[in-house]
Amino acid sequence: MPEYVPGLEGIVAAQTVISLVDGANGRLVYRGYVIADLAEDMSFEEVAHLFWYGRLPTRAELDGLAAELSEWRGLTEAASTALDALPKDSDPMDVLRSIVSVQGVRHALEKPTLDHAIHATASFPTVLAAFQRRRRGLEPVRPRADLGHAANYLYMLNGKEATPELVRALNTYLVLLADHGMNASTFTARVIASTDSDMSSCLVGAIGALKGPAHGGAPSAVLDQLEQIGSAANAEHWMREARKRKERFMGFGHRVYRTYDPRAKILKEMCARLNPSFYELASRVEETALAILHEEHPERPQATNVEFYSAGVLQAIGLPKDLFPPTFAVARVAGWTAHVLEQASHNRLIRPQSEYIGPEPRKPVPLAER
Amino acid sequence: MPEYVPGLEGIVAAQTVISLVDGANGRLVYRGYVIADLAEDMSFEEVAHLFWYGRLPTRAELDGLAAELSEWRGLTEAASTALDALPKDSDPMDVLRSIVSVQGVRHALEKPTLDHAIHATASFPTVLAAFQRRRRGLEPVRPRADLGHAANYLYMLNGKEATPELVRALNTYLVLLADHGMNASTFTARVIASTDSDMSSCLVGAIGALKGPAHGGAPSAVLDQLEQIGSAANAEHWMREARKRKERFMGFGHRVYRTYDPRAKILKEMCARLNPSFYELASRVEETALAILHEEHPERPQATNVEFYSAGVLQAIGLPKDLFPPTFAVARVAGWTAHVLEQASHNRLIRPQSEYIGPEPRKPVPLAER
Repeated sequence: MPEYVPGLEGIVAAQTVISLVDGANGRLVYRGYVIADLAEDMSFEEVAHLFWYGRLPTRAELDGLAAELSEWRGLTEAASTALDALPKDSDPMDVLRSIVSVQGVRHALEKPTLDHAIHATASFPTVLAAFQRRRRGLEPVRPRADLGHAANYLYMLNGKEATPELVRALNTYLVLLADHGMNASTFTARVIASTDSDMSSCLVGAIGALKGPAHGGAPSAVLDQLEQIGSAANAEHWMREARKRKERFMGFGHRVYRTYDPRAKILKEMCARLNPSFYELASRVEETALAILHEEHPERPQATNVEFYSAGVLQAIGLPKDLFPPTFAVARVAGWTAHVLEQASHNRLIRPQSEYIGPEPRKPVPLAER
Repeated sequence: MPEYVPGLEGIVAAQTVISLVDGANGRLVYRGYVIADLAEDMSFEEVAHLFWYGRLPTRAELDGLAAELSEWRGLTEAASTALDALPKDSDPMDVLRSIVSVQGVRHALEKPTLDHAIHATASFPTVLAAFQRRRRGLEPVRPRADLGHAANYLYMLNGKEATPELVRALNTYLVLLADHGMNASTFTARVIASTDSDMSSCLVGAIGALKGPAHGGAPSAVLDQLEQIGSAANAEHWMREARKRKERFMGFGHRVYRTYDPRAKILKEMCARLNPSFYELASRVEETALAILHEEHPERPQATNVEFYSAGVLQAIGLPKDLFPPTFAVARVAGWTAHVLEQASHNRLIRPQSEYIGPEPRKPVPLAER
């Protein structure tokens, strides 16, 4: 019997051309480009093109992809009906998981294609905006074909165009979060793809994994903690008390990065510009958290992770806390779909083993004698 | 960099008390009981109790569980509305994935509990029966609390009680398929659970994985192939021609069993009794397939897998072909839920690595210059 590998830590489950998380050097690479070179100047659509087609688009290719994305922003009739049937106080991650599933219902199994990748990516913001409007008692806003992916998401949420600064901030967020090696949701999508299932099944599984607080479900927890801390002056006192109660600091630590998360660095700079009141508190909390964590475990590299400053950026953009995790999905679906296509092209079932540690076989006692 | 392990073959991803696939000895063990000792005499409810509580129930415990299962057979209003909105020609696996997701929508994240396991298991047959009735233009049939899990599923499908023989056959099928070590859908459910996500997210991911033809999506393909072969007399000729065209024989081979799949053995005997015309053709096809496969690869152990005779049993029960895979899910949800609870109790993220094989980082060419 081979040895049990808890968490599959240190096991390589896939080869990929899509992204490299270079933890030792604090770099994230998308198909040959360092994230810092993409985050400020590229649109989410360009990065999606890079993932799906393997290279950055020409102007004509970009226009073509943007047109296809905007063409597929609508929901199916079944998806609209299902969305309207959900309780208004539903967890938006559950809404996204369910409506992406309904939107993906087909007559028969279809192998994942590039079209499926584009159509799914196009529809995620529509689901969330429609639900957000509905729970606020407002009519849904139809997508606008002349707006880019980030701009249109904000337009559908708010019923009016966002400022260029906020559109740019959301776009950068989407680019930064679009892929990240073999994280748990991407791995989920690849396992499902390895059974030769369809694109929607892979995405629905990935959304379910992203929902977990140990993966993408924590950015709103960062805000909750900052709200409890209240002020920069109170940070050190509150945080030392929290450690006595064995509470975790939200937004710190990552299994891979051994230096500063390159996404957190960019998001931090954005926070300073866009959300100064958040930044004042958060940067003090960060400093204090890193100091306390270093005191406790000087040998352990401690890094602010992407969730910490994401919270400040998404708050500045005007999103409610519970839309943070599904907006993470709006970004990550570009990566998920690329990984699904990559996995599907390999066509090998991902099926590890389990080690049985239950009782030795014995004869069952019949019901009447139990 | 550690080495890439294609398909994670030979890697142990979890320790489990729930089941042991003892491939070398052709045994399947559920928490200390060999499947052959359970399949004929135990109800699906008893086996579910074994998975969830770790032991076979007393009469009173079994009555309690049966009552709770029958109490939770109904669909939520949102789930009913969503189901009615789906096109009648939808793939029933997509229907199950979507309606289980909608049924699981909550206000906020809930950690997986035994109650969630019971409620989800209770609702799967209702989803499928309601969809089957709807696409046939018939009114849905309300569940009957006095019927067991298998009997009630058939009752809701057909609007009348099935014969004891067919109820018993379906029950045995459900018991045999209820768990099977670390298969791809169970693994999917455990990966999602490892992020601390909720029960429904795990199950929805598992359904998506089970849908893949490399996992649970193939039993209807067995029937398709048998229909093409047409008659026992035609078997050898058809099959030798098929091999010349490099076609696979459906229902043969398994990564784990090196002897006869113990579930296939029991299902084969059931087929002989319940579905003689299927059996006559299928047993000849099996004999021929095993002979041809042995000629081609004498060194390779060839085994009839569970899908082959499942098809004949489910056909005898009266299920249409496209309900075979979701009926597999009706069985497997007992195992999935038990694995989710086991994984959730360990609370360690399953996150393997990927190996980047894409281009070396270079500077992006600006859009205007591409």
